[in-house]
Amino acid sequence: MRFTPRSELMVRISKLQQAMSDAGFDGIVIAQNADLFYFAGTVRQSNLYVPASGVPVLMVRKSLDRAREESNLGEIVPLSNLKEMPNVLASYGYRNLGVLGFEMDVLPVALFMRYQKILPSARLADASELIKRVKMVKSAYEINLMKEAAKINQVIFSRVRDYLREGITEIELAGKLELLSRQMGNQGYIRMRGFNQEMAFYVISGPNLAEPSYLDTPISGTGLNVSLPQGAGYRKIQVNEPVMLDYGGAFDGYIVDQTRTYCIGRLPEKMTRAYETAISIQEELKQKAVPGVLCKDLYALAVDIANQADLGNHFMGYSDAVHFVGHGVGIELDEWPVLAKRFNIPLEEGMVMAIEPKFVFPEGAVGIENTFVVRNNGLETITEFDEGIIYL
Amino acid sequence: MRFTPRSELMVRISKLQQAMSDAGFDGIVIAQNADLFYFAGTVRQSNLYVPASGVPVLMVRKSLDRAREESNLGEIVPLSNLKEMPNVLASYGYRNLGVLGFEMDVLPVALFMRYQKILPSARLADASELIKRVKMVKSAYEINLMKEAAKINQVIFSRVRDYLREGITEIELAGKLELLSRQMGNQGYIRMRGFNQEMAFYVISGPNLAEPSYLDTPISGTGLNVSLPQGAGYRKIQVNEPVMLDYGGAFDGYIVDQTRTYCIGRLPEKMTRAYETAISIQEELKQKAVPGVLCKDLYALAVDIANQADLGNHFMGYSDAVHFVGHGVGIELDEWPVLAKRFNIPLEEGMVMAIEPKFVFPEGAVGIENTFVVRNNGLETITEFDEGIIYL
Repeated sequence: MRFTPRSELMVRISKLQQAMSDAGFDGIVIAQNADLFYFAGTVRQSNLYVPASGVPVLMVRKSLDRAREESNLGEIVPLSNLKEMPNVLASYGYRNLGVLGFEMDVLPVALFMRYQKILPSARLADASELIKRVKMVKSAYEINLMKEAAKINQVIFSRVRDYLREGITEIELAGKLELLSRQMGNQGYIRMRGFNQEMAFYVISGPNLAEPSYLDTPISGTGLNVSLPQGAGYRKIQVNEPVMLDYGGAFDGYIVDQTRTYCIGRLPEKMTRAYETAISIQEELKQKAVPGVLCKDLYALAVDIANQADLGNHFMGYSDAVHFVGHGVGIELDEWPVLAKRFNIPLEEGMVMAIEPKFVFPEGAVGIENTFVVRNNGLETITEFDEGIIYL
Repeated sequence: MRFTPRSELMVRISKLQQAMSDAGFDGIVIAQNADLFYFAGTVRQSNLYVPASGVPVLMVRKSLDRAREESNLGEIVPLSNLKEMPNVLASYGYRNLGVLGFEMDVLPVALFMRYQKILPSARLADASELIKRVKMVKSAYEINLMKEAAKINQVIFSRVRDYLREGITEIELAGKLELLSRQMGNQGYIRMRGFNQEMAFYVISGPNLAEPSYLDTPISGTGLNVSLPQGAGYRKIQVNEPVMLDYGGAFDGYIVDQTRTYCIGRLPEKMTRAYETAISIQEELKQKAVPGVLCKDLYALAVDIANQADLGNHFMGYSDAVHFVGHGVGIELDEWPVLAKRFNIPLEEGMVMAIEPKFVFPEGAVGIENTFVVRNNGLETITEFDEGIIYL
């Protein structure tokens, strides 16, 4: 098992503390799995208190032993009942909790009301933006993990050739690729932060690529049933139509998001032209996405290129298109930043984003997705793999 | 695709309306995927308003076409922006919203605050208990779906024999079984209601069965990495040790939960004796679990049997044991009722529960889990399969 190094945790905590001081928070309580993994290196049932200054305290309901083994934080103590939290914090001298932040974007109301009751003297506030801002800039350690994940992902994308043939169902191909990915360490669960966002494995073909999504995704597929209408379905893959593998590989806690377009035979010119436009958007963003540029301006640039190619109505969806072209990715698939209309945040070196220009038509979709690191001179590709349409 | 029949939806809505009247709610807004699937038959981005009396209105952000195709409710209308909700409801005559229920057990605080802002005249209240109570009693339609899911599950459990051999890793065996289940229609995602609850595929062997869980589960496994420490790991399965397949098969939106204990060779007498005790607990509960009996009394009965066999310290976990022996299952893996200490609800005919007496030792665990329907004369097994330890 690979444990997050202490130095790494300390840098993350100190970035959060800096953000807290700037924003007027006296402390933050972290309780969600993805954020616990990021700030404490463990997802055991626990609450991590991070003061604006001073040492963080990880209060563990269960399992204390495992939390101590997995986390490289210094102060890891038992918390048999949430009610004990004020006493535990007081024992560390944290008595005046002041403005106390919570992950209000993910914390259920009922649980939040328990915190309100237990901490009557604190002024509870929303710390989710602070947390998302800290997490969106990745360290060298994180980027290294994502590069390792990407190497495994390349195997999955290359092995499509072994299985893809006329008449195979989407789900049969998906199942075989899932097995491969599990054999190479895929954790089998993709974390998403958004309410109601849940993620399946996307092998999608022909008109199924035009299915509207119940999630915030440009393509979706039909899925296997109406209760989870996304991902691979029962459709048999045919010749001369696009087949997309859109796959968030999750290894050692980190996800890399990647899409390639495959085809047995040939695609109509309309689709190859749209694919070229998707590549143009990617190449343009790779140059223009440098520190300081606003996310919304990059989105506008992508929309402009799509419009100039007369493909605006097909960009990022056909009916119910989504209004972004890229999104942060890391421990969760839907991290910050988002390359979207009203997203005013400027890029910073070390941000990691999946950029996914896609064009959707009633009979299918084409496009590409890669995960990139923002560098001083533009984007560095993490998910290196053949970038053309992959013909069989 | 199988769509929930209109008659089925209407019965569910009317049960909820009855509960609302009894509890003094004037209406409920449903927004979470699992509840939307249950009450509207679709999981499209939407809000379902259910008045205490009158017709429910499904307000859809996207995709309206798909919601109309999938849902057999009568009133399905667009809702481009959440702010429009009061106007849409007013157009149906729902002007005085009064006490308005929300799924406060799952709804994130930030989203809830948006509802508060949009609906200033309503008194927002927690409707989650009402919803859980309605969902916990299954209809014949639902039980039929679960029986179909169980038939597919039996294939998975029987095919373990084809793959389980000395030296195979947990993850290799899990991956192969996952592929089989996907080929037979497993939707690949298990919904859980609880905050931070997330579910992986459990093939666990020997001492990995004693790993403390970060979830509310009696067994857990190590998983593949510290970010998601549950489910199959890299351990090589050995002879003369227990191997558990604990598998929630999700088909057509419904989950059946089931566990069997396998072994290549022989198990020590301590474990076979514990297994017999697990079977005793199951058999006793099968007789005693009739309508009217309190969940907590059934849990106490299970604990008594474990204690009488001198196995109290190993029941439902070794370190960090969980304090229940069964849980409701349906669209979500963690539904009501729960056979637990303080769970005062009496059984009703039609409730569906997974009952999972398990005994955990440092060197492994044994036990059984089946999904049952509460009938007038006791429990009916949904997940029929060989109930002994399965030796290879």
